[in-house]
Amino acid sequence: MEFKNDVTIAQEAIMEPIVEVAEKLGIDSESIEQYGKYKAKINEIEIADLDTRKEGKLILVTAITPTPAGEGKTTTVVGLGDGLQKIGKKAAIALREPSLGPVFGMKGGAAGGGYAQVVPMEDLNLHFTGDFHAISAANNLLAAMLDNHIHHGNSLAIDTRNITWKRVVDMNDRQLRFIVDGLNGKTNGVPREDGFDITVASEIMAILCLSTDMEEMKDKLKRIIVGYTHAGQPVTAGDLKAHGAMAALLKDALKPNLVQTLEHTPALVHGGPFANIAHGCNSIKATKLALKYADYVVTEAGFGADLGAEKFMDIKCRLSGLEPSAVVVVATVRALKMHGGMSKKELNKENLSALEKGLPNLMKHIENMQTVFGMPTVVAINKFPTDTAQELALVEEKCKQLGVNVVLSDVWENGGNGGQALAQAVVKLADQESTLTYAYELEDSLIDKMTKVVQKVYGGEGIVLAPGVKKEISRLETLGFGDLPICMAKTQYSFSDDKNKLGRPEDFTVTIKKVKVSAGAGFIVVLTGDIMTMPGLPKVPAAESIDVLSDGRVIGLF
Amino acid sequence: MEFKNDVTIAQEAIMEPIVEVAEKLGIDSESIEQYGKYKAKINEIEIADLDTRKEGKLILVTAITPTPAGEGKTTTVVGLGDGLQKIGKKAAIALREPSLGPVFGMKGGAAGGGYAQVVPMEDLNLHFTGDFHAISAANNLLAAMLDNHIHHGNSLAIDTRNITWKRVVDMNDRQLRFIVDGLNGKTNGVPREDGFDITVASEIMAILCLSTDMEEMKDKLKRIIVGYTHAGQPVTAGDLKAHGAMAALLKDALKPNLVQTLEHTPALVHGGPFANIAHGCNSIKATKLALKYADYVVTEAGFGADLGAEKFMDIKCRLSGLEPSAVVVVATVRALKMHGGMSKKELNKENLSALEKGLPNLMKHIENMQTVFGMPTVVAINKFPTDTAQELALVEEKCKQLGVNVVLSDVWENGGNGGQALAQAVVKLADQESTLTYAYELEDSLIDKMTKVVQKVYGGEGIVLAPGVKKEISRLETLGFGDLPICMAKTQYSFSDDKNKLGRPEDFTVTIKKVKVSAGAGFIVVLTGDIMTMPGLPKVPAAESIDVLSDGRVIGLF
Repeated sequence: MEFKNDVTIAQEAIMEPIVEVAEKLGIDSESIEQYGKYKAKINEIEIADLDTRKEGKLILVTAITPTPAGEGKTTTVVGLGDGLQKIGKKAAIALREPSLGPVFGMKGGAAGGGYAQVVPMEDLNLHFTGDFHAISAANNLLAAMLDNHIHHGNSLAIDTRNITWKRVVDMNDRQLRFIVDGLNGKTNGVPREDGFDITVASEIMAILCLSTDMEEMKDKLKRIIVGYTHAGQPVTAGDLKAHGAMAALLKDALKPNLVQTLEHTPALVHGGPFANIAHGCNSIKATKLALKYADYVVTEAGFGADLGAEKFMDIKCRLSGLEPSAVVVVATVRALKMHGGMSKKELNKENLSALEKGLPNLMKHIENMQTVFGMPTVVAINKFPTDTAQELALVEEKCKQLGVNVVLSDVWENGGNGGQALAQAVVKLADQESTLTYAYELEDSLIDKMTKVVQKVYGGEGIVLAPGVKKEISRLETLGFGDLPICMAKTQYSFSDDKNKLGRPEDFTVTIKKVKVSAGAGFIVVLTGDIMTMPGLPKVPAAESIDVLSDGRVIGLF
Repeated sequence: MEFKNDVTIAQEAIMEPIVEVAEKLGIDSESIEQYGKYKAKINEIEIADLDTRKEGKLILVTAITPTPAGEGKTTTVVGLGDGLQKIGKKAAIALREPSLGPVFGMKGGAAGGGYAQVVPMEDLNLHFTGDFHAISAANNLLAAMLDNHIHHGNSLAIDTRNITWKRVVDMNDRQLRFIVDGLNGKTNGVPREDGFDITVASEIMAILCLSTDMEEMKDKLKRIIVGYTHAGQPVTAGDLKAHGAMAALLKDALKPNLVQTLEHTPALVHGGPFANIAHGCNSIKATKLALKYADYVVTEAGFGADLGAEKFMDIKCRLSGLEPSAVVVVATVRALKMHGGMSKKELNKENLSALEKGLPNLMKHIENMQTVFGMPTVVAINKFPTDTAQELALVEEKCKQLGVNVVLSDVWENGGNGGQALAQAVVKLADQESTLTYAYELEDSLIDKMTKVVQKVYGGEGIVLAPGVKKEISRLETLGFGDLPICMAKTQYSFSDDKNKLGRPEDFTVTIKKVKVSAGAGFIVVLTGDIMTMPGLPKVPAAESIDVLSDGRVIGLF
C-alpha cells in the first residue's frame, strides 16, 4: 500500500473559499478580513459581540509523555473535529500556529498529518497572516528602545548586567544564542552580553495568547519586566513608554485567524507559545470565539498532559474562565512500548510485556485528568498497522480499570471517517456533569504551588531548591508576584526532571534550578533544567530540499 | 488657516473596496488576493499574461538635491496620479513600500502627505502585506545556514573573517550594528565579528525589485555572495543550497501590492531598496504591471536625481527594458534658497539672491535629464504659501532658458485638483519623441563607468581611488563582474561626495573608498563614504507617542 505524503495531500486539497467556511460558523463576510481566498482574520467588532451568544463545549486533546515514536496529537484534534462534523455536529478546532524557524530544521511544519490536516498548509508553515512577524517586531522594538534609553544617558539607571529582555528571530539560529552587542565605540550603543531567542519564546507570544482584548493586552505589555536597576528594582516596558507602539504592531495579530481542515471544518489557528517557559496553548480569544459559534470546539495543549494539560487548566482556563467538558488523551501502542523500554527500531514487533511496562505512563495521565482536574476522560489510540489485537486489548483492559473508554482512531489514513467513533465517544462524555478543579490555588505560596504540581501531577515526592532559588522566590513574593500561577519548565520526555526516566517514575524529586517572573504574561516560570530557547539547525537542514516550482508550488516542505 | 495632519486626513478617508480599485484597472477579482478589504496582491497568473496587453507611458518623478526644507517627491507622485485621473486619463502610480523601522524613530511613515496620500496609511506603515518580513526571514535564513555550515565542519572552507552577509531586522537598532556572536562554547556556533543591517539594506530587497519572475529571482538569490574562502574564492547562497528555501519564503512577497490614493487612483506599492547601497526604486514587476493596465504610470526614485534618477535609468530601465516618456523634477523655492545658503529658519522670507545662487542645483538636474538621459523634462514647484511671485518668476525664467516648463503644484493642499496643471503638462510632454540614453555602457570598464557618472551626472572632474580600491576593482573584474552596472553610494545631500557642498559644486573629485559586488542583485556598489545601513533611534523616539485606541485606531504615527 502506498501512502501519499502530507504535502501532496495538502496541495491536492480542494479548499472552500474562506468566506464559506466563516458562513458555516455563522460569521458573515463583513466580519472577516480575507488574507487571500483561504485565510481570514476575524474582526474585533465581531468578537466584542460575543457575550450575547451561547457557548459550545470545549474538548481538550492532550497526550501521554512524548517519545520519538510520535503520538499524533494535532492530527487527532483535526480528525476529531472532522469526525464531529461527519456525525452532524457543528464543530470547530482551535490550534496553535506553527513556528517558521523549525520548518527549515529537522522537518517541515505542524498542521496535522495524512488526511487530518489543516490547509492551506504551505501558508500556515511559512508566514501565515504575519502574526509571528508582528510579535518579533514588537519584541525587538522594546529591545531597541531599551538599549536606546541606555545609550542616551540611562536615566532609569538600568543595570546592563541585569537585562532580562532578549531580542527574537523566528529562525533556528544557534549563532545568536550568546552575543556581545553595542560594540565599536560610543556612537554604536553600549557593549553588553546579550542573546536572541526564537520568536515563540517571546513573552509577547504568551501575552497575545492570554489577552482577550486590546486594553488587556496593552496592560500586560506595559507590565513586562525588561531588566533591573542597579538597586534591583524592576524596569518595565511601561517605564520605557514602549507598550503603545508595541500594541500598534500587534493590533492585527490579536485577531484570530480562520482556516479549514481538509474536510472544511473551521479551524481557528492563533498564537503559539512555547510549552515549557510559557503555557503552550493557542489564544484565549480564538478558543472563546470558536465556542461562541460552534457546539463543539476541539483544542490541544503542548507536549504531554503533565505539562500541556496542567498549564491549560491552571493557567489558561483559570485566567479565562474556560472550562473543558471532556479530555482526550492520545496514545500510540508504539509509544507505550517505548515507555516500556523498547527501542524505536523494534517497535514493529508485538511485545506485550513492554507494553504492560509502559502503560502506567498512560494510566498516570488519565488519573491526573480525572482526579486532579475533575475531567471526563477518554483515550484515543492513534492506530498503526503494526498494532496487534492483543496489544490493543491490553490497553483497553487497563483503561477499563480506571473506568475509561479506549477508542481507536485512524484519522491519519481516513480523516473524519476515522474519527467518527472518537467523536461519538466525546459527545457522550461531554454530556456528563463535571467541574474543573486545579492542581493548586493562587493563594498557595509559590513553594506550595510547585510542590503540589510535582506531587499531584508528576507523582514525585516533592521539590528540591537549587542554591539561591529560595532567595529568588522570596524576592518575587516581595515584589508582589506571589499570587501568580506557576509555569513549569521541565523536560517533556518524563514526568520527572530527568528525561531518561520513562514510563511512570516514582520516588523522585524535582530540582528547581531557577525561578523568574513573566510579569506581563502573568506567571512565574519555574525552571527545572536548561531550556533551549533558541534551537539550531541540523547538519543537513530541511531548507536545503525546499524549493519553489515555476507554478508557485512549494516542494520539500515535508 | 488650520491644516489637518496627515494621519487625520488618512484616517478620515473613505476608501473604495480594493476589488473596485482593481476593476478600475481592468483586473478582475479572481486575479487578486485580498489582504483585508483595502489591500491586495496581484496574482502570478495575471502577470504572466502581460505581454498580450498594450503598454502605457511611464513618468518618472525625481527631485533636486534634498535639503532639510523638504521637496515632496512622493506627494507629487500621488498628486500627479490623481491629477491625471482628474483630467480623464487612466492612471496608476508605482511607489516603494515604507520601512517599518524608521516609523518608530524620527517621524512616522512615508506615503505622501496632506491630500496627496496613499491609504490605508496605518497598514502601509506597519506590516503592510508582510513583504519586508518575508525579506528579513529569507535574509536571516541564509545567515543561519551559513553559520550552521561553519559550525558543522565548514567543508566549504569559509573564512570567518571574510563573511560579507549580515543578518537584518526591520528596526532602527544601533545596538546591533557591531556584535560578536557564536559565543559560549562549542555547542553555540563559532565566535566571529558580525552585525545587523536594517531590512531595506538587504541585497534580497534589491533582488526582489529587479526580478520579473520566480525563476529569475531564484537565479539571482543563488548568485548572492555570502563571503569568501580562505583562498579568496566567493561562496554563494547556491553553494549553501539556500536559494530554494529563500524563494519559498519570498513567493508571496514577489507579487505586487495594490492599494489606492485618497482619490482612489490605483497605487502599486512594492519593494523598497535603499537608494545608496542599492538602486532605490520600486519593483520592475509592479512598474510593468501598472504599465500594462494604465495609460499613464507615475513612479519615483530615491533621493535626488543624481542618485535616484541615474540608477533608475542605468540600472532599473537598462535591466528591464523600461523607458520613461517624461521626467518631472520636483523642487521647492525654499529648498533652492537653502542651496543658495539660507538657513532653514529664514526660509519664510523672500530672498531672490539666495534663490538665484541655489537655482544651479535645479539646472544641473534638468540638464542631466535632458542631455545625459535624453528625457523630455518638466519642473514641478511644490508650492508653499511663503513663495513670492518674484521668486516663482525667477525659477520660471531660469528654466525657460533650458526650454523647460515650470508648473506649480499644490497637491498637498488640494490633491488631484492641485495636480491637474502638472498632469496636463506631463501628458503633452509624454507625447514627444524621446530615446533613453545611459550615462555609461555596460562594456565600459568599472573605472570608466564611475568616471562617467561623476563627470556627466555629478559635474565633477573625475574620481580618486582610495588605497586598495584599484586592486579590489581588478579582483572584481577577474571574478567576472566587470560588465555589471554600478550602484553609486554617495551622500544624497550634494552632487559631490561632501554633504556640505550645496547648490551646483564644481571643480571637485569624488573619492572611491570601497567597491563591492552585489552579485545577486547584479551591480557593483561603489562606496564614496561611510553609508549607515543600520539607523539608530533618537533620544525621544516617535514610538513613545504611538498608541492604539480601544476602537483599534492607531494614534501618533505622524
